[in-house]
Amino acid sequence: MINVAVLGYGTVGSGVVEVIEENKETVNKKSAAELNVKYILDLRDFPGDPYEDKVIHDFNIILNDPEVSIVCETMGGVGAAYKFTKECLLAGKSVCTSNKELVAKHGPELLQIAKDKQCNYLFEASVGGGIPVIRPINYSLTAEEIENITGILNGTTNYMLTKMDALGADFDEVLKEAQANGYAEADPTADIEGYDARRKIAILSSLMMTKNVDSEKVYTEGITKITSADFEYAKAAGFKIKLLGTSEKLSDSEVAVMVAPFFIDLEHPLAMVNDVFNAVFVKGNMLGDSMYYGRGAGKLPTASAVVSDVIDCARHLGKTVMCFWDAEDVKLADVKELEREFFVRIDSAAKEDFEELFEDFEEIIADRKEDAGYFLPPTKERDVYEKLEKLGDTVLNVIRIYR
Amino acid sequence: MINVAVLGYGTVGSGVVEVIEENKETVNKKSAAELNVKYILDLRDFPGDPYEDKVIHDFNIILNDPEVSIVCETMGGVGAAYKFTKECLLAGKSVCTSNKELVAKHGPELLQIAKDKQCNYLFEASVGGGIPVIRPINYSLTAEEIENITGILNGTTNYMLTKMDALGADFDEVLKEAQANGYAEADPTADIEGYDARRKIAILSSLMMTKNVDSEKVYTEGITKITSADFEYAKAAGFKIKLLGTSEKLSDSEVAVMVAPFFIDLEHPLAMVNDVFNAVFVKGNMLGDSMYYGRGAGKLPTASAVVSDVIDCARHLGKTVMCFWDAEDVKLADVKELEREFFVRIDSAAKEDFEELFEDFEEIIADRKEDAGYFLPPTKERDVYEKLEKLGDTVLNVIRIYR
Repeated sequence: MINVAVLGYGTVGSGVVEVIEENKETVNKKSAAELNVKYILDLRDFPGDPYEDKVIHDFNIILNDPEVSIVCETMGGVGAAYKFTKECLLAGKSVCTSNKELVAKHGPELLQIAKDKQCNYLFEASVGGGIPVIRPINYSLTAEEIENITGILNGTTNYMLTKMDALGADFDEVLKEAQANGYAEADPTADIEGYDARRKIAILSSLMMTKNVDSEKVYTEGITKITSADFEYAKAAGFKIKLLGTSEKLSDSEVAVMVAPFFIDLEHPLAMVNDVFNAVFVKGNMLGDSMYYGRGAGKLPTASAVVSDVIDCARHLGKTVMCFWDAEDVKLADVKELEREFFVRIDSAAKEDFEELFEDFEEIIADRKEDAGYFLPPTKERDVYEKLEKLGDTVLNVIRIYR
Repeated sequence: MINVAVLGYGTVGSGVVEVIEENKETVNKKSAAELNVKYILDLRDFPGDPYEDKVIHDFNIILNDPEVSIVCETMGGVGAAYKFTKECLLAGKSVCTSNKELVAKHGPELLQIAKDKQCNYLFEASVGGGIPVIRPINYSLTAEEIENITGILNGTTNYMLTKMDALGADFDEVLKEAQANGYAEADPTADIEGYDARRKIAILSSLMMTKNVDSEKVYTEGITKITSADFEYAKAAGFKIKLLGTSEKLSDSEVAVMVAPFFIDLEHPLAMVNDVFNAVFVKGNMLGDSMYYGRGAGKLPTASAVVSDVIDCARHLGKTVMCFWDAEDVKLADVKELEREFFVRIDSAAKEDFEELFEDFEEIIADRKEDAGYFLPPTKERDVYEKLEKLGDTVLNVIRIYR
C-alpha cells in the first residue's frame, strides 16, 4: 500500500480524492500498488464528508509520517504551498501539484530538491488541466528538437472570446455573463489580463528550452481591449481571435515568448478550439506540428492529471523521473525587435493618413463605416508602433496575427 | 554507451538513423546515455550511404551481440519481422517498432515475452505516426476509465476525402492524383479498404480494454463507395465525411469497434483534421474529451516516434515499462445490434417509397435532382438495413453519422 496525503481540500483536492476512489481499480492497477489517501490537510472541517475522518489541520503530522510517500499539493499560492512542498521534498516525499503559480516561480529549485532526494515533483495539472501535455513533452517528444509551443491556455478567456464571436457581444457584457455562469471569477484579473496563460507558457517554454523562463518577464497583453468591431473584421477576413501563449526557440539560449490576443486563420487547428477547451500546439524539427486538446480546467479533469502524476510517482518510488528544467535563466527576446503581421483598426477619418504612412497593407472589407481594418505584412513590432503613434487616438486597436 | 540495431533500412529505418544522428545532443540527454547505431540489417547494400559500414545481412550478428540492447524493427510484415522480434525479446533485447500489422497480430504475446525477460516491446510509431498517443494512453491517462477512442487513423484516405470535399471530385479521380503525388500507393487496398485503420483502432482498443481486440474481426468499410454526391449532401447539412476508426467500451469485456466512413459534424474537432493529418479522440470518465493531432505518417515523424521508444527503453534497461494488454480476447459487439444515426442517399424515383418506409427522417436539402438525402435518427443498424433492402438498387449510399 502507498499512502498519499492531499494538501488543500478545495475543488481540485476533493477531486483528487474522488478520482482515486471512483477509479480505484484502474488507479491501483496502473500504480502496481494500492493507493490510500491517509490524510487531507485543510484549515476547515468537513462534517458529513465521506472522508471527514482523514481531515487534519497540522501539516507536521504528514511531514513526520514516514508512511506517507506521495503528497498532492492542491492549495494554490506561493506561501504555505511553497513551504510545504519544499519540506515534503526535502523529506523525500514526492509532490504532485496543480499549482502553476508555484511551478512557474520555483520550478527549478523544487525539481532540483526532488532530484537530490530521489523523489519527484510533478505538475501535469499545472498546464492544460486534464490535457496530457507536460508528460508528452517530457516522455514522448524526446527525440525532437522542439522549436515552437503555442497554446490556448486559459479556459475563461477562450469561453469569453467564443461568446463574443458567436453573439457579436462586447467584452463587458460577456464578462458579466461568464461571471454569472461561473466561467469567470468575481475578480477575473488573472484570466482576462493573461497572467494565468503567462505562467503556463512560461512553464512550457522552460521545458522546451530545458532552462528557466522567468514568467514575470514574459510580455503579456490580455483581452480587455478586444471589441465586437474586431470580431467583425476577423470574420470578414476568415479569422478567429484567440488569446495565445506563444513561444519560439530562437537559439539554445534565447526564446521569443508572449501572451497576447491574436488573429488566427480559420484553417489553423487552434482556431476551432472553442468554449472552455484548451489546446497546445507543439512543433518539433522531425515531427512537425502536433496538438494536444481537451478541457483546460475543471475539478475532475485537473484532478485526473494530478492522480496521473501520483501514479507516476507510485511507479517510481525512490527514482526521479525525467524532467529537464535548469535554474539558469533563458534570455527573452525583446518583442519589439520581432517581425510579425498585424491587424490594425483605425477611425475612418484617418484612412488617408494610414494609407500614406504604410506603404504595404491589405484593407479588410467589412460592413462598417465608422472604422477601417487593415492587415500589415511581416514588420518589426517597433516600426509598426512607432508609425502608429503618429496617428494618435485614431488607432482603435492593434492585434497580432498568428499563422 | 547503449548500442542500437536497426532492422530494415527503408523509409522508416533510415529515418531512425537520421533522427538519432541529427538530434544527437537531445537524444543522448534524454536517454541519459550515448546512443550508438551499431548495426543496420538489410538485404541490400547501400554504397555511398554515410552509414554503409554499419549495414549487415546476417540477423544473428545482432542477436548474438550482447552489446546490442535495443533493436528497432522497421521491416514491416509479420514473417521475418515476427521471428526477429521474438528472438530479440527472448534474448532480453528491447524492441521498438513501427509495424502496426505485427503489433495488432502478435502484440500480447510479444509484450508477455518482454515482461518475462525484463525488457520492452514498444510501438508508439504503430498508431498515428509521430503523434504521441500510445504513451499518453499508457502513461498519462492512467487515472481515467477510457470509454471511447475514435480517430482519423489513415493519412492516405484523409488526404483523398479532403480533396474530394474541396474539389467536388470523385473517388477514382482523386485516387489517381494521390498516387501520382505519392500520397497513395500503387496498390492502395490496405488504405482505401480501411485495413490500415483497422489495425490501428484494434491496437488502441486493446489498450483501452487492457485485453486483446482481434483486428481481423473488426467490422470494416473503406471509402471506395463515397462519391461527390455524398459530399454535396454533407456540405448542405454542415458535415464532413471522414474515415473513422471508432471504439466504445460497452463493459469490461465487450467493445463496439468499427472502421467506416462517417458523416461528422463540422463543430467536432475531428472534422477539421485535413489532408494527411491524423487525430485520435479519447474520452475518459473524468477528463471528458481529449484529442491528439499531428502527422500520422511520413519518414521523420514516424522515425521520431520510434526513437522516442528507443529513449524510453534506454532509460528503463532491465525494467519493463507499463503496458496492459492481456492475451484474452475481448468480445466484439455485433455492429448490427448497435443504434446509430444514418445518412441515406436514394434515387429520386424512390422518395415516396423511402418516406413511407421510415416513419422518422430528416430530408437534407441540396441542389440535386437525381437523388435525395436523408438523416435517420438513432436506429438499430439491423433495422435500417432490413428496411433499405426493400428499396433495392434505389439505395445509392448509406453512411453512418458520428457525433
